[in-house]
Amino acid sequence: MKYGIVMFPSKKLQDLANSYRKRYDPHYALIPPHLTLKAAFELSDGEIEEYSEKLKQIAKNHQPVRLTISKVSSFQPVNNTIYFKVEPTLELQELHKNLAETLPHSETEYAFVPHITIGQKLSSDEHSDVYGQLRMLGINHEEVLDRFHLLYQLDNDSWTVYETYHLGKE
Amino acid sequence: MKYGIVMFPSKKLQDLANSYRKRYDPHYALIPPHLTLKAAFELSDGEIEEYSEKLKQIAKNHQPVRLTISKVSSFQPVNNTIYFKVEPTLELQELHKNLAETLPHSETEYAFVPHITIGQKLSSDEHSDVYGQLRMLGINHEEVLDRFHLLYQLDNDSWTVYETYHLGKE
Repeated sequence: MKYGIVMFPSKKLQDLANSYRKRYDPHYALIPPHLTLKAAFELSDGEIEEYSEKLKQIAKNHQPVRLTISKVSSFQPVNNTIYFKVEPTLELQELHKNLAETLPHSETEYAFVPHITIGQKLSSDEHSDVYGQLRMLGINHEEVLDRFHLLYQLDNDSWTVYETYHLGKE
Repeated sequence: MKYGIVMFPSKKLQDLANSYRKRYDPHYALIPPHLTLKAAFELSDGEIEEYSEKLKQIAKNHQPVRLTISKVSSFQPVNNTIYFKVEPTLELQELHKNLAETLPHSETEYAFVPHITIGQKLSSDEHSDVYGQLRMLGINHEEVLDRFHLLYQLDNDSWTVYETYHLGKE
């Protein structure tokens, strides 16, 4: 089964992200707005409890993380994903690294650029238009995230939550 | 904020439910297939941690529950929701009752009929057609559910998971 690890920001930030995703992100209906800590990876049914236990330990060893967003950015020219750029604090980097070390298939293709996607799979022209507008947005958001979730993917590509892990808690 | 409590069945059963929901349920994109333990209720930001602690206690006091499905049914004439009928075992009834007693706004409108919705908000004719076909389905499914989730609703009516609670665990 395919699993992934994400953090959901506050309802307020999810609502804001959705106001763009609705128009610009074909994954809008598949998963709520999120920050990906570990992209899709395969685990067999027999492995899941062992890994879940490891995730619990990792969560315990990290404190809640500050989420700071000050601008809209894009992955161009790599791809045309537009996102809320999340400040890559040491806390987030360490959490990501710890998860990557522990979980399988962690030959990470890209460096970790924490972000919350608000648009993707746009045509080149759409990307220029939309990014041109959104990069002008004044966004200045800060909150603290105290948990992350392990999700699995259904046949229709949507995601269901399997487990919640609390940062810094028993 | 609006909260709800649900159990997600196995991926296998969610995929099966989605194969119908895709066509017959306008909530298809808003939440994965689920069994509702407590329908939408309001909690303020200040109340959530207190209630989450109560839910943790309730979960600890119940054992994992058996989910048995042997037919497709409908709420007609009350409404035209079509669903996988879940056997109302004592374990499920007790869990539902315990949650209803503990959470606010528990003047339950209906008796607890555990179910997994596969179609709703159909026209009268659609309902007759679809229900006529689906009630003939041979369905015979059994599994054990060991957790439930607390979700909150976003402005676009979709649901995000806030917390996972384990039945019978610390």
